[in-house]
Amino acid sequence: MNRDVPIERLVVVGPGLIGGSFALALKRAGMVRTVIGAGRSRASLDAALRLGVIDAAAELAEAATGADFILVATPVGQMPAIFAAIAPLLDARAVITDGGSTKRDVIAAARTAFGARIGQFVPGHPIAGAEKSGPAAASAELYTGRKVILAPLDENPAPLVARVRAAWERCGARVYTMTPDEHDNVLAMISHLPHVLAYALVDQVCAHPRSDLLWQHAAGGFRDFTRIASSHPEMWRDICVANRDALLGAIGGFEGALAALRGLIERGDAEALEALFTNARSTRDRWLAEFEPARGPAPDAGQEA
Amino acid sequence: MNRDVPIERLVVVGPGLIGGSFALALKRAGMVRTVIGAGRSRASLDAALRLGVIDAAAELAEAATGADFILVATPVGQMPAIFAAIAPLLDARAVITDGGSTKRDVIAAARTAFGARIGQFVPGHPIAGAEKSGPAAASAELYTGRKVILAPLDENPAPLVARVRAAWERCGARVYTMTPDEHDNVLAMISHLPHVLAYALVDQVCAHPRSDLLWQHAAGGFRDFTRIASSHPEMWRDICVANRDALLGAIGGFEGALAALRGLIERGDAEALEALFTNARSTRDRWLAEFEPARGPAPDAGQEA
Repeated sequence: MNRDVPIERLVVVGPGLIGGSFALALKRAGMVRTVIGAGRSRASLDAALRLGVIDAAAELAEAATGADFILVATPVGQMPAIFAAIAPLLDARAVITDGGSTKRDVIAAARTAFGARIGQFVPGHPIAGAEKSGPAAASAELYTGRKVILAPLDENPAPLVARVRAAWERCGARVYTMTPDEHDNVLAMISHLPHVLAYALVDQVCAHPRSDLLWQHAAGGFRDFTRIASSHPEMWRDICVANRDALLGAIGGFEGALAALRGLIERGDAEALEALFTNARSTRDRWLAEFEPARGPAPDAGQEA
Repeated sequence: MNRDVPIERLVVVGPGLIGGSFALALKRAGMVRTVIGAGRSRASLDAALRLGVIDAAAELAEAATGADFILVATPVGQMPAIFAAIAPLLDARAVITDGGSTKRDVIAAARTAFGARIGQFVPGHPIAGAEKSGPAAASAELYTGRKVILAPLDENPAPLVARVRAAWERCGARVYTMTPDEHDNVLAMISHLPHVLAYALVDQVCAHPRSDLLWQHAAGGFRDFTRIASSHPEMWRDICVANRDALLGAIGGFEGALAALRGLIERGDAEALEALFTNARSTRDRWLAEFEPARGPAPDAGQEA
C-alpha cells in the first residue's frame, strides 16, 4: 500500500475485535474510503454498523466484488468456505489477507480456492488480544505496539506483501515475517499449548470428586493461570484441529518437561527443584522486563500458596 | 481472642507480606500492644522496623519469651527449626499459629517440637497473595475479604482456635476450617499443581532449540499463564518437598486429563473438543462471577491466538 493511495473498498469478513480494529485503525489513519462488513452473524454486522466499525454490510459475494483489500478475520475453520465464495469474484488488483491463528491450513485452503491466483493471498496473523471479543470490543488502538506476523508465499509479488505490511504498520503494529511452518510451530508453543494446558486443568478440576471444594478455594493465581480457558470454544476447536501436528509436538515436549519435574518431586531433590525454579523465574523476569518495560521487574507472585 | 482482650506481645517470625500484613491489620484494629519481629534476614527486619510493621526486632529466643501470640510466616522448610527454637520458651498461655502453604508436614514438625504442648499450636494458612513480597509489600488491607484456612488439631482447646480465628477475622478475612489432609489435597490441586505446570512450561521454552524466537513472540496470554512461575523459588521448593504425595496425585490426575485432551486432538474430534472447551469456559465463568462479582461476566480471552 503506497501511503498516498488509500484503500478504496476494504472488505472485512468478520468485523469483530480483530477485523473491526483493523478497520477502525485504518479509518483513523485516513487510509480507507469505504469499509464493507460481511459475516455469518447478522447481529454482529448490525452492531458493527451501529458502532461505525463498518460503513455497510453485505453478503459475501456482493462485498467481495470490486474490493481492493480483503481481510478475513474469522475462526480458521470458516476460512475454506469463505475463500471458495470469494475466489470467483476476486478483482485482479485486489489483495486478500487473513488474521487466522494458524497458517499452514489456511494457506492450503487458499491454494485450493484461489488456484493460479494464490499470489493475491498474503497470509497474516496479528498477535493481539483483549479481554473481550466482537465489534463492541474493536478499537483503533488495539494494534498499537502489537506484533503482526506475515507468512508470505513464494507466489506473492513483493508489492502486494508491502501493501499488507504497510496497512498493519499504519495500524501501529510491528510486522514480522516467518515461514508458515515457523509460525505454526512458534504459536503452538507460546499460545496453543498454554491454552490446552489451561483447558486440561479446568477439565480436571471439573471432574474432581471434590470439585465444589476446589472451586470454593481457588484464588487469584488459579484465575490468572486459567484465564485463557475462558477463550472462545469454536476458535480453539478450530486451532486444535488445524495445527494438530505442531500442537501435538508441543504437548509431547511438555509431557517430557512435566515428567522430568515430577521425577524431581518424587525423589525430593530440593536442590534441583530450586535450581529449576530459579532459572525459570529469572528467564521469565528478563523476558517480562522487555515485554513490559514500563512495569519494571517482574512481580513476585509466590505468596499465594 | 476475646475482642476486649488485645494481644500483649505478638511475635511475627518472618514479618514479610504475610506476617507483616497480619501485624499491620491487628495494629489498625487496636488488637495488639507490641509487635516483635524475628527472622533470619536482618535487612528484612530493619525494613519492617523502618516501615512500622514491627515495633522491635529480636532474636527468636528473646522474642518468643513472654509472647502470648506467635505467627510463623516463613517458607515451610524453615519451620521445623523455628518450632524447635521456640518450644522451650513457649509461655503456657501462648498460642502459636502459622501461615504455611502446607499443613501435614508443618503439623508433624510441630508435634516433634512441642510434644505434649502441641495443643498450643493451631495450624493455619491465609490464601492471600499480592504481586510483591517482603515487609514493603505488607498492608493492613491484604486480608480484607480473603480466605484463611485453619486446620485445627484434636488437641487444640476450642478457646485457642477461637482466638486465632478471631485474630484473622479482625484482619478482615473469612475463616474456613478443613482437616490437614483436605487442606493439602485442595491446595495441591488449585495452587501447587498450577505452579508446577507453569514452571514446567517455562522450563520447556527455555530448553527449546528456538527459545529466542519463542520469547520474542510470547504475548499477554503467555504472561498471565506463567505469572506464577515468577514465584519465590525457595518457597516453592519447600512446598514441592513438603506436599509431595498430594502434589504427585494432582500431577498424575493432570497427566490423565492432558492425555485425554491429546487423544481428542490426535483423532481430530472437533465435536468433543468444542464440548470440552465450552464446559471449561462456562464452569470457569460461573466460578469467576462468584470470585470476582464486581467484574461481571468473565472476559473472553480467546482472540490472542
